[in-house]
Amino acid sequence: MYGRYTQELGVYAKEEAARLRDGGVRDGGGLRRNTSVRSRAADLLEYEKDPCAKCHLCASRCQKFLISRVGEDWIFLILLGLLMALVSWVMDYAIAFCQEAQNWMYGGLDSNLLLQYIAWVTYPVVLITFSAGFTQILAPQAVGSGIPEMKTILRGVVLKEYLTFKTFVAKVIGLTCALGSGMPLGKEGPFVHVASLCAALLSKFMAALFGGIFMNELRNTEMLSAACAVGVGCCFAAPIGGVLFSIEVTSTFFAVRNYWRGFFAATFSAFIFRVLAVWNQEEETITALFKTRFRLDFPFDLQELPAFAILGIACGFGGALFVYLNRLIVECMRKQKTINKFLLRKRLVYPALVTLLVSTLTFPPGFGQFMAGQLTQHESLVALFDNRTWCRQGVAEEFDYISHHHAWKHPQVNVFITLILFIIMKFWMSAVATTMPVPCGAFMPVFLIGAGFGRLVGEIMAAMFPDGIHADGSVYPIVPGGYAVVGAAALSGAVTHTVSTAVIVFELTGQISHILPVMIAVILANAVAQSLQPSLYDSIIRIKKLPYLPELGMGHHEKYNIRVEDIMVRDVRFITLNSSYRELQEMLLTGQLKTLALVESRDSMILLGSIERLQLQSLLSLQLGRKRRLEYLRQLAQDNGTQDHLPSLTTDSTPSVRGRHGGAGLGRSEARTKQEMYENERLKCRVYTFSVVSSVSLQIGEWEEQQLDEPVDFKNCKIDPAPFQLVEQTSLHKTHTIFSLLGLDHAYVTSMGRLVGVVSLKELRKAIEGSVTVTGVKVRPPLASFRDCGNSTSVSEVTELHKLCIRHRGLSLPRETFCLCDIFLYCQQIP
Amino acid sequence: MYGRYTQELGVYAKEEAARLRDGGVRDGGGLRRNTSVRSRAADLLEYEKDPCAKCHLCASRCQKFLISRVGEDWIFLILLGLLMALVSWVMDYAIAFCQEAQNWMYGGLDSNLLLQYIAWVTYPVVLITFSAGFTQILAPQAVGSGIPEMKTILRGVVLKEYLTFKTFVAKVIGLTCALGSGMPLGKEGPFVHVASLCAALLSKFMAALFGGIFMNELRNTEMLSAACAVGVGCCFAAPIGGVLFSIEVTSTFFAVRNYWRGFFAATFSAFIFRVLAVWNQEEETITALFKTRFRLDFPFDLQELPAFAILGIACGFGGALFVYLNRLIVECMRKQKTINKFLLRKRLVYPALVTLLVSTLTFPPGFGQFMAGQLTQHESLVALFDNRTWCRQGVAEEFDYISHHHAWKHPQVNVFITLILFIIMKFWMSAVATTMPVPCGAFMPVFLIGAGFGRLVGEIMAAMFPDGIHADGSVYPIVPGGYAVVGAAALSGAVTHTVSTAVIVFELTGQISHILPVMIAVILANAVAQSLQPSLYDSIIRIKKLPYLPELGMGHHEKYNIRVEDIMVRDVRFITLNSSYRELQEMLLTGQLKTLALVESRDSMILLGSIERLQLQSLLSLQLGRKRRLEYLRQLAQDNGTQDHLPSLTTDSTPSVRGRHGGAGLGRSEARTKQEMYENERLKCRVYTFSVVSSVSLQIGEWEEQQLDEPVDFKNCKIDPAPFQLVEQTSLHKTHTIFSLLGLDHAYVTSMGRLVGVVSLKELRKAIEGSVTVTGVKVRPPLASFRDCGNSTSVSEVTELHKLCIRHRGLSLPRETFCLCDIFLYCQQIP
Repeated sequence: MYGRYTQELGVYAKEEAARLRDGGVRDGGGLRRNTSVRSRAADLLEYEKDPCAKCHLCASRCQKFLISRVGEDWIFLILLGLLMALVSWVMDYAIAFCQEAQNWMYGGLDSNLLLQYIAWVTYPVVLITFSAGFTQILAPQAVGSGIPEMKTILRGVVLKEYLTFKTFVAKVIGLTCALGSGMPLGKEGPFVHVASLCAALLSKFMAALFGGIFMNELRNTEMLSAACAVGVGCCFAAPIGGVLFSIEVTSTFFAVRNYWRGFFAATFSAFIFRVLAVWNQEEETITALFKTRFRLDFPFDLQELPAFAILGIACGFGGALFVYLNRLIVECMRKQKTINKFLLRKRLVYPALVTLLVSTLTFPPGFGQFMAGQLTQHESLVALFDNRTWCRQGVAEEFDYISHHHAWKHPQVNVFITLILFIIMKFWMSAVATTMPVPCGAFMPVFLIGAGFGRLVGEIMAAMFPDGIHADGSVYPIVPGGYAVVGAAALSGAVTHTVSTAVIVFELTGQISHILPVMIAVILANAVAQSLQPSLYDSIIRIKKLPYLPELGMGHHEKYNIRVEDIMVRDVRFITLNSSYRELQEMLLTGQLKTLALVESRDSMILLGSIERLQLQSLLSLQLGRKRRLEYLRQLAQDNGTQDHLPSLTTDSTPSVRGRHGGAGLGRSEARTKQEMYENERLKCRVYTFSVVSSVSLQIGEWEEQQLDEPVDFKNCKIDPAPFQLVEQTSLHKTHTIFSLLGLDHAYVTSMGRLVGVVSLKELRKAIEGSVTVTGVKVRPPLASFRDCGNSTSVSEVTELHKLCIRHRGLSLPRETFCLCDIFLYCQQIP
Repeated sequence: MYGRYTQELGVYAKEEAARLRDGGVRDGGGLRRNTSVRSRAADLLEYEKDPCAKCHLCASRCQKFLISRVGEDWIFLILLGLLMALVSWVMDYAIAFCQEAQNWMYGGLDSNLLLQYIAWVTYPVVLITFSAGFTQILAPQAVGSGIPEMKTILRGVVLKEYLTFKTFVAKVIGLTCALGSGMPLGKEGPFVHVASLCAALLSKFMAALFGGIFMNELRNTEMLSAACAVGVGCCFAAPIGGVLFSIEVTSTFFAVRNYWRGFFAATFSAFIFRVLAVWNQEEETITALFKTRFRLDFPFDLQELPAFAILGIACGFGGALFVYLNRLIVECMRKQKTINKFLLRKRLVYPALVTLLVSTLTFPPGFGQFMAGQLTQHESLVALFDNRTWCRQGVAEEFDYISHHHAWKHPQVNVFITLILFIIMKFWMSAVATTMPVPCGAFMPVFLIGAGFGRLVGEIMAAMFPDGIHADGSVYPIVPGGYAVVGAAALSGAVTHTVSTAVIVFELTGQISHILPVMIAVILANAVAQSLQPSLYDSIIRIKKLPYLPELGMGHHEKYNIRVEDIMVRDVRFITLNSSYRELQEMLLTGQLKTLALVESRDSMILLGSIERLQLQSLLSLQLGRKRRLEYLRQLAQDNGTQDHLPSLTTDSTPSVRGRHGGAGLGRSEARTKQEMYENERLKCRVYTFSVVSSVSLQIGEWEEQQLDEPVDFKNCKIDPAPFQLVEQTSLHKTHTIFSLLGLDHAYVTSMGRLVGVVSLKELRKAIEGSVTVTGVKVRPPLASFRDCGNSTSVSEVTELHKLCIRHRGLSLPRETFCLCDIFLYCQQIP
């Protein structure tokens, strides 16, 4: 924080002098003023000593000159888009290759059912086990979707290990294997994480190359939010939907000025992603991923809207059920202690078992024949979005034109039964599969289930109204594919609590003709799901116990009437400007707060700022620390002539030790005599030391007491001079807004400058939803992203301080031990 | 702010007592504590006196019971959507009717060219003049787009008169007439305003019915932002694009939790709007407004992308030019003093002249034949979005299948010439027409020009590559309609600086197949336009001198290095807790700040809060005000026996006045004598009064001096106890973020609780872009929306105070006048 000035030193010094002059006239109160000036002067000195700071200055100048004109944001975004498109395309290619390999193996062994079964089952089990193992070994943070973590990170919490190169490798390879296995897993969520990883790594790389700007924390956050958009955008080739989805899923407040970044990067990424497909001759030109061919002139009848609405509401319930089921499975396994223990020991057993179960059930000659088990997600979706009806008046039509028709058309079983089985089986399979410890998302499986459900409703409608509903003149048959699109958007919207799935389906299918049914269904599904369950990502956040702030739900208007004074903690822990070190120590020993308020005095209670716990610990250890102890001891020795005793003690003992080593070459008896002598000497030494120590330790104890009674010197302490303040009358709603806007952890409640209370995330959370406690995750200090002025110094400074504290162990060791240690240390120093 | 407690009074009193007890033990410093307690006690008393507050409590209870379950937000949004859809549909109907009427008149007179011309010209001139006159008389705030004002209002500035019923009526009727005239004007911008008006009025209505929630200011802001989405949504039947466009255009930071509101209301509104069309048998089913029929399987070739990119870049330049031209016209007319004076006197001349010019040029048998002058905007767009080429290899094809083919196909002139003329003429016409003082937007005209330009590029491409570019096998001819769609999105995006025009075109055309070209062109157009000119709305904000905060542009990374200490004003005006009224008066007379900082003392400079100027003025006028003066005078009279003089003076003078009136029925001579007597009496009275006054005024002067030396009593003053604070090290970028997040007007810079400077919007604006000053618009106090706890009391309270001040004129009148006034007032009171 300190030691970094963008102005030239000379200019700064002049200004400071002028300010001093002015200040002397204008404000008479010298003490505080001087303190601040002194600390700034100290900073200046520090600054001059710090070579890094100078480098930083140079680097920033160079960077200005070099990059600012080229538009470093554009370059960064283009690079990010390009990289992600490549990753996405290569991954898709690898996944397709994996699935083809499985099909080839499965198809080649069609003479023997058992061999075929073994081939069908072994392949995914091996892939998933490898994925789980690889991820576990390299970076366990890569497990799961990544969207909950990104949401937490973008809220301002530091989850450092989630954005490392290791995690990137683990995520990409693990995800490829997991998706290649053909399990009902998704690519979207992990891709958001991969894109963020990519952005973070690219930032680091650019910072190493060009410095300056690329180290700015705020900017990195902006880039991370753009990266989330890129993740979704290049996964589905859906730039608009990607931007909106990422905003809805990861942000609480969105800065519109970052909007273009997301759009630009996502569009570029989606463009490259699709161009690669054209270049590889998979496609003739750039089109949608799941292109549909619904008729344009009469996409749906007005009288079909109730069916769409019902579909939306049903999807809402289904989405809530999915989230509930997913959480239930995780919680069940956690609560069952035997299972939990077993799984913790053998981490690969669970994914292998789940994969075995799922692939057994989808085995095409077995149960899989009734649920289109043979098809991949992509093939199923293409079939479900088909624009023709599969059955008319209850009788299955010949639909040979679909490439994978045989999967859906079972000779004995109705299409409806196949669809229902498909939906039910996929539903629980997806809920179970997404709990496996591999990198995987749930969006795509849910999307597929939604499409299936929509298709079912559509087919039922088509069976009920074979000639369509439209009354006047021309016959417009019902398009079940439209229902599939609506269902997919509604169910995925319900599970993720987003509206932008609507846009994603338009971009995925390349048709926007069903916009109103889709919007209506998605909104209804959201309304139902949001009133029943949290979103899947929020559910995972709660399961993983990440720090979060619950949303103020729809229509909770009592929130407007609760005030801060109703929820604040009135017994605030604070220190005053004239506190003694003893008070500080007591405060640190009794409380566990991360920051303490600094007030002017116990009488006035005027809030001056807040200090981090670590800062206070280092203050205390500076006062009672080794250096000052040694100084005191030296002074003590000089004053009382203790120095005579101590050197004699050390000279007595050290030669004997040396003698012991030196006597290695002597005879045995001589050695034994030496040994005895040494033992005697040691005994003497111990007794002597003890007597000296006991007398010295008394003096040290006195000295300590004396030191503790001194007032705290805040000169060397980093104080946040303007912690966020609320007033007692602030409503809960506004408090929530401010907390989520600024990513606060806590805020002080003041009344005319006097500290009257404190509100933290915990109280806010309790007030909003009940009592949930979060532990074990480091939350950034309040307003960290706004108050830090260095780029990444504050974090490293704190780490340094922390190291210092650990080295001193000023607070964790009992005091007596501390004294003895010091004396011995002192003894060893004297030659 | 005060006088509203959601808790029960008893509970509150108990708590307050408990707090007092605790407080007495914990903090000894009685003075400040007591002050605060006293002020709260005073509030309590006030509360008990205030019947409104009690009603509020009851109402809020009832409202909780009645509405909270039904989901009042949903009801509100449904009502809003329904209303706006109806307004939009009725307006469209009326506009179509107006245009049909014009065509009928024009068509019926085809025998006589002069009559035809007169009919063609008179009709729009009358409509526009009526629109301008009507708006001018009823509500001049209804003029123009309304989006700039909405942006300012949503930023937190109070522009009250922009959300009244009068404005609503003026806007709706004025807009209908303006659009019915066939001028190149748009419906979108005004519709955003109309929807916001609708929401504001609906809120008031609901508040009157149900109270409570509907009065919450924060909630109203949320509803306003939803309303903006509804405005765009129901204007184009584009719910998603509407939401995104309104976010981009009006917000700086967007709360994702408000997202669903916008989506729901816009979808509902668009749905009803289109259902009305079906119900009116204009359409068979719900489809897009400008439905296109481009081929789905091969929408465009990859090699056409450079053409799309060039189109985008050209549109970017065009957009910037449009904004520049529009501003130039306004500024020209303002600077030309003679024109300006003339126009100010004859407000209707300018719109009439412009209309005459435009309609003369579009007269179909005249110049209009070369620029499709006969077509309305809707017809032109339908033609431009057509999916077939208009000419092949330079020769115009027969395109009779378009309903208005003859307008584009001139026997002598090439289609290219027609298109070029169309673009150029419409360009300047739109730029001029949108400066007329009628309710009108610029989006639709710009959209049309963009479509024309795109069509031109498309036709050129089609002429250059008659068989398409695609190399392998099948022939895919180029679709110029696709270029028209891309051009429309790009140009409107460039003018408004938004990306969401892309989504709007998809929803307008009902096809999303051109997503990548559209996105690429829109992003490039935005990049070009944003680097050249502000958006049209920001340009209007600057022209209208509304308070605004410029955006941090793309890639201005030096902003990360400027700190608050570099831009802050160090000479802060403040008052201290022990300031005298004299200091307060001087502060008020010399400075023009809207709020003043309150610090503990000149020595400590600890910031305690901020006080609004009006509050201080009322404090001062309370101290020196009429009531206290009269009291003093009465006391003076009692003490010195002055009362004897004064009554005699008044009894002498008043009867004579009464006598004058009473003598109306007497004879002439008698009346004259009376008159003379009266004159004499008056003269005497004046002399006497003067002598009394001069002696009293001396005493009053002394009394005033004495009063001014008393310390200020802040008891009755509303203090914002936690004004927003920054620290010196905060970067400009973070400051900008905080200012735009919280809608601040200024923030104090503190260092350890000490006030060291202040940063206001002005400094921030200067730092970002240069020096621009804004005057005459009322900016809300900092954090008003977060700190106010009453619903709308604060505003009304302030207004009340303002009225009080105006009545007293305590500061604007010179002191001597004040005294005399008082004495006369005193005299009149005594019977």
